Amino acid sequence: MEIKVVRKVLDVNDTMAARNRELFRSKNVFVLNMMSSPGSGKTTTLEKTLALLAPDVRCAVIVGDVCTTNDADRLARSGVPVVQVNTDAFGGDCHLAAHVIEKAAMDLDLDQADLLIVENVGNLVCPAEFDIGEDARAVVLSVTEGEDKPLKYPLMFRVCDAALLNKTDLLPHLDYDKAAALENIRQIHPQMPIFEMSARTGAGLAPWVEWLKDQVKHKIR
Amino acid sequence: MEIKVVRKVLDVNDTMAARNRELFRSKNVFVLNMMSSPGSGKTTTLEKTLALLAPDVRCAVIVGDVCTTNDADRLARSGVPVVQVNTDAFGGDCHLAAHVIEKAAMDLDLDQADLLIVENVGNLVCPAEFDIGEDARAVVLSVTEGEDKPLKYPLMFRVCDAALLNKTDLLPHLDYDKAAALENIRQIHPQMPIFEMSARTGAGLAPWVEWLKDQVKHKIR
Repeated sequence: MEIKVVRKVLDVNDTMAARNRELFRSKNVFVLNMMSSPGSGKTTTLEKTLALLAPDVRCAVIVGDVCTTNDADRLARSGVPVVQVNTDAFGGDCHLAAHVIEKAAMDLDLDQADLLIVENVGNLVCPAEFDIGEDARAVVLSVTEGEDKPLKYPLMFRVCDAALLNKTDLLPHLDYDKAAALENIRQIHPQMPIFEMSARTGAGLAPWVEWLKDQVKHKIR
Repeated sequence: MEIKVVRKVLDVNDTMAARNRELFRSKNVFVLNMMSSPGSGKTTTLEKTLALLAPDVRCAVIVGDVCTTNDADRLARSGVPVVQVNTDAFGGDCHLAAHVIEKAAMDLDLDQADLLIVENVGNLVCPAEFDIGEDARAVVLSVTEGEDKPLKYPLMFRVCDAALLNKTDLLPHLDYDKAAALENIRQIHPQMPIFEMSARTGAGLAPWVEWLKDQVKHKIR
């Protein structure tokens, strides 16, 4: 019963996601959906990524949180157009749904963007279930979260196209088996590129940014 | 429309949670619902807590994950009865609902327990919305997650009765404003006790365990 209800919500979402996808294609903009647990370092990663993409790639950002505009305030400093979505206006939703993205995108001039990055609500479960019309998905995983998250939250790692293993600067201070973590990601999604990085120090960010540039280049003309 | 559907699911859940609460009362067992982001250290905290509660308090555990029995395997080593719930059997649910707890509790001998601890699915949003018939709720927040999580996920901090600020052993290696984090928790829930601890080193666990023992003592006879 509960599952049937959820199925219906997802069907409606898929229809709206297809409409978003058509809009983004017509605007010639590549859309990246960034997802993770709360506190994995998505916003810091995004700040550094935006700095490395400029001026080659013109970016815009939609950032989702249940509450606060903290992340939008931080990202606005990069000079990139940012729209904040607070899901508490929709009953505290735990993810960004396609219709929310459609509405947020109206507040951006997509003709002036090559790449729209969506920073989803911090949640390793629900956002993976909601197509928003994106071209690629990336999951950020902090090494402080332990090695087993890919096995515990397999859908997230299955639907993503890249994994960012973040906060590697903390590795000397953790009991962390990095080989096991990489193996767990590969077990769920064998071909997915994995970028080890520290958004805080900037170490390891370049290969990720190159990968993202390549993705954008392949879509937009 | 989506909100109406969610409301109905929550109403059904509340009815079942009330039934659970009646069961737990009749069995004279105190129920703690432990919630957090993925990777905050819930399971390590629980392992250490169980060790400190024995032999005074007889415990049982229900542990929820989308997938894997990793946590149940770890907790079973403590000698405490453990039931693992995998929500992928219910469409990959992002939380433990009351009917799931009712079913899991049937696999435990509640006559032999004073305290049932439910380790919820790692998720700072959805579990806060689902009453499972518990007596108290605790949220574990790792210092690696940043200072702003209470403001971004206010419902979780509003509904909880205690906050565990975990992984304090990593503070020397982080840019973390602990005073701001504590202030953010207090802004959402002024009277809530906050326990600073490192489950890994064991530092700071005793006051939390004493608090929990007190809670249990006040309910069971």
